Amino acid sequence: MSPTRFEVIGLDADDTLWHSEDSFARVEERFVELVTPYASAGVDVAAALRATERTHLPISGYGVKSFTLAMVKAAVNVSEGRAPASVFAQLVDLGLAMLTEDVRLLPDVPAVLADLARDHRLVLVTKGDLVHQTRKVEMSGIAHHFEAVEVVLEKDPETYARILRQLGVAPERFCMVGNSVRSDILPVLALGGHAVHIPYPLLWEHEHVDHDGDLDELASIKELPAALRGASSVPNV
Amino acid sequence: MSPTRFEVIGLDADDTLWHSEDSFARVEERFVELVTPYASAGVDVAAALRATERTHLPISGYGVKSFTLAMVKAAVNVSEGRAPASVFAQLVDLGLAMLTEDVRLLPDVPAVLADLARDHRLVLVTKGDLVHQTRKVEMSGIAHHFEAVEVVLEKDPETYARILRQLGVAPERFCMVGNSVRSDILPVLALGGHAVHIPYPLLWEHEHVDHDGDLDELASIKELPAALRGASSVPNV
Repeated sequence: MSPTRFEVIGLDADDTLWHSEDSFARVEERFVELVTPYASAGVDVAAALRATERTHLPISGYGVKSFTLAMVKAAVNVSEGRAPASVFAQLVDLGLAMLTEDVRLLPDVPAVLADLARDHRLVLVTKGDLVHQTRKVEMSGIAHHFEAVEVVLEKDPETYARILRQLGVAPERFCMVGNSVRSDILPVLALGGHAVHIPYPLLWEHEHVDHDGDLDELASIKELPAALRGASSVPNV
Repeated sequence: MSPTRFEVIGLDADDTLWHSEDSFARVEERFVELVTPYASAGVDVAAALRATERTHLPISGYGVKSFTLAMVKAAVNVSEGRAPASVFAQLVDLGLAMLTEDVRLLPDVPAVLADLARDHRLVLVTKGDLVHQTRKVEMSGIAHHFEAVEVVLEKDPETYARILRQLGVAPERFCMVGNSVRSDILPVLALGGHAVHIPYPLLWEHEHVDHDGDLDELASIKELPAALRGASSVPNV
């Protein structure tokens, strides 16, 4: 085994390199505050929003703009048409503010990337909105570590296979790192690649998947360089 | 000169391979119908929408979802808060319908692509929304002709340079074909590549650019194969 077991490290972005889901959670709270006064008593306003999101997902996809359109539609439905125009303006403004808010890196991310980049090729692989994810990469101050930034529609085995083909790397020399078992871990394992799960305190329900628990998992990204070099307490990474 | 002067042909999608701008125009008309009853007399409702679109563009980018969010915000503003919830629901539904409407290919597109693909590598290069553009490519029935589909944030020289690098093709062996001088022609010429302009009857005002008119231009895509092989009335293509 060479000193660098992996040639290419793939990194998820949202909730792996920077905070994301907490921002959706805060805006959802604000949605509930704005819309509840117009909803009938006992209606679960947050659940209605999540149901609308699920309905829209195959049509409008992931990301803040889809989420904002779902907020508008859910506000109409849950208020039975009683919400005034000012509520809809505030919902759109909440979405636009999410699109421009500062990138909040997770602890140790810049040092870990600088360390990994010394003897690996790094690629960022993220779902979501092209304009938003590109802005976050540019604002993050860590873009220079990445050989490629892939904003993809869905993180399935086909997508990872295409990325590995473009990078010219074999699956066994690729390791993906991310917070979503569904998107970052299972499809890469299915290809014969490696993957390391670093959970984030919040997980969007759509990303939830049942799995057998026998996955390589780290408590924080700080442990990643040692784990990838085989010197950690995670023996089979 | 080889029988195929160009190795790779890049094709724009919206309003080059399939209709797009006419759909925005129809929805804008519907926006005007829906919102005008709540606007003060004499207010130019369509102009207000376009102004909101321009304001949002650097934040939310191109595409149907951004356009829909702009419709919601413009409806609030232009109605001075008087538009009812039902209007906002209809605006979101118009956007969702645009995201799922059938792909309407321009005349001769399948035959032209089949012809060009015989002795060129083809790549589709489009701006806009990742989920929407990907769906259109998949639904179009012409995806199999393309070696790569690039959904990009902005069509500038840097973006084209990256695509040519990934394809391993020199600019002088690349020809881009599209309806927008600003996005499809000038940035490729700036790189030392070639480009053919095929105007569409409608052009989004944001794409308008003043140019000297000395561009290779065809009346329809049907003329493209002959032009690229140097047998057409466009001598310097």
